[in-house]
Amino acid sequence: MSIKQRDVKVLDCTIRDGGLVNNWDFSQAFVRTLYQALSLSGVDYMELGYKNSPKLHHLPNAGPWAYLTEDLIRETIGEKTNTKLSALVDIGRVDERDIVHRSESYLDLIRVACYLKDVDKGIDLASKFHALGYETTLNIMAVSHAKENDLNEALEVLNESPVDVVYVVDSFGSLLQRDIEYLVAKFQKFAPKKALGIHTHNNMQMAFANTLTAIEQGVTFLDASVFGMGRAAGNCPTELLVSQLHGTRYDVRPLLEPLEKLFIPMREKVEWGYTIPYAITGMLDEHPRTAMALRASADKDKYLDFYEKLTTVEPHTAP
Amino acid sequence: MSIKQRDVKVLDCTIRDGGLVNNWDFSQAFVRTLYQALSLSGVDYMELGYKNSPKLHHLPNAGPWAYLTEDLIRETIGEKTNTKLSALVDIGRVDERDIVHRSESYLDLIRVACYLKDVDKGIDLASKFHALGYETTLNIMAVSHAKENDLNEALEVLNESPVDVVYVVDSFGSLLQRDIEYLVAKFQKFAPKKALGIHTHNNMQMAFANTLTAIEQGVTFLDASVFGMGRAAGNCPTELLVSQLHGTRYDVRPLLEPLEKLFIPMREKVEWGYTIPYAITGMLDEHPRTAMALRASADKDKYLDFYEKLTTVEPHTAP
Repeated sequence: MSIKQRDVKVLDCTIRDGGLVNNWDFSQAFVRTLYQALSLSGVDYMELGYKNSPKLHHLPNAGPWAYLTEDLIRETIGEKTNTKLSALVDIGRVDERDIVHRSESYLDLIRVACYLKDVDKGIDLASKFHALGYETTLNIMAVSHAKENDLNEALEVLNESPVDVVYVVDSFGSLLQRDIEYLVAKFQKFAPKKALGIHTHNNMQMAFANTLTAIEQGVTFLDASVFGMGRAAGNCPTELLVSQLHGTRYDVRPLLEPLEKLFIPMREKVEWGYTIPYAITGMLDEHPRTAMALRASADKDKYLDFYEKLTTVEPHTAP
Repeated sequence: MSIKQRDVKVLDCTIRDGGLVNNWDFSQAFVRTLYQALSLSGVDYMELGYKNSPKLHHLPNAGPWAYLTEDLIRETIGEKTNTKLSALVDIGRVDERDIVHRSESYLDLIRVACYLKDVDKGIDLASKFHALGYETTLNIMAVSHAKENDLNEALEVLNESPVDVVYVVDSFGSLLQRDIEYLVAKFQKFAPKKALGIHTHNNMQMAFANTLTAIEQGVTFLDASVFGMGRAAGNCPTELLVSQLHGTRYDVRPLLEPLEKLFIPMREKVEWGYTIPYAITGMLDEHPRTAMALRASADKDKYLDFYEKLTTVEPHTAP
């Protein structure tokens, strides 16, 4: 059953967020095939990776999608379709001199990810990209840990900035529908001039549902990834989202062949999606890094031990 | 973050719905360990299986939980805790003479599953169990395919029956939050005297989210299964549900050891949970039987072919 339509935009971040799982080890053929399939599915934006600088952020053995270059993008994509191209940058890890004017770039959108404490730096950076002609978003990460008064103030500043879209980012996969409703209402109250976006994680199997809730509340920029491929429990699956937006231009069919030919083999090599350790960090509203370390160890299914470690107050930390 | 509390009851149907996946091949030790863990987690009811008659419903090689007997239950459970025991029966497959008076039984609750067309038979059967002292529910399956006027009338009849709880059952995993809201409002309008229940499937990763939506709407009987173990895409995971009800008596911790010791090995032997074929039947609002057959075949990952078969109008069926 299809949901109420608004002027939504679907942004597929498979290569960028999925790269956190496979160290950005995607072939150019993989990315090109996915771009063509997403285009046919009506997906509005494809995020190709990070545009951080290897000088400022050294990830050993990371694939090229961690450090996008214009040459790589042009060579991979070839002819552009109606699907626009996006890159994410992190505060302090991007060299502004790497960003050319949009008229010389394959990119249309640059998204700035930051924690609330760095929101001024984030706005400054996004404003520079705006001046270079790009569409811009500011993605406030870990919003479930934000102090409410700080968040309200940051949104008021954002409201007066040139940033096009402000994102609610459920970094820990700890939010339920009612939390999404609360946060979206807050973002709308304090940043009424801005379009809003949503980026969810699936620790508690809420990624798709929370995205639908956000749409109902008026959020228009929707992050998703094919087969949910993304860090830890992954994201809202693109195939589900486009299937429920089928009243307009979206279509799930073009994604089915990439799913069987690209994503099933990929899933056999690397893990993402719902597991109990990711559920536990979601329940506890914590960053999944402890669960990611557990899943990479021989103890990956020792759930009770893991839970005890995360919930036991050590003697020296007791109040 | 915990959700608003009402007087909810969690009913774990792992053995019954999960039995559809492994042909009810659970050892008595498995069931006993799970009962003890569910009791410690505060789960209100455990459904041990079907109380159909092998004379009326012959499933070759089915384990004993497809045909519950008082001896089996007593021997398995031993001493009862605060967690009540439940069995499901299907119209036309249960021999009423197999049901003893509740005072002689380990069972507390008998649930009757039926399609809308059989609702009169379902009410008749549930009324007999009510007269024998049991708590009763009527679970109207495949509600997404019910004709609206028929459903309204059936609910009015149910409202005057002795049935304790009426269930909304999303058999195909095709419902979104707004559908749940719509259906619950309808059930409340036409059967205002009845407590309501919800049974979800996870084809579109909506099982937990739809259960939360139902709670917000006032539904009080909540079906769930550990690790979501259930037919095809499975159910609302018990571990997620109890974790978000932790404000009162519910606790996820006692489920963690069974998850690692019982359910991970089980999942290595049999499949349930989100896969693309189950997502497709959910999107198309169809019974998952075609997807279950596909998953049991060598073509289990041929998603595009599967989709074409389900969506192509054959020449001889065209209008």
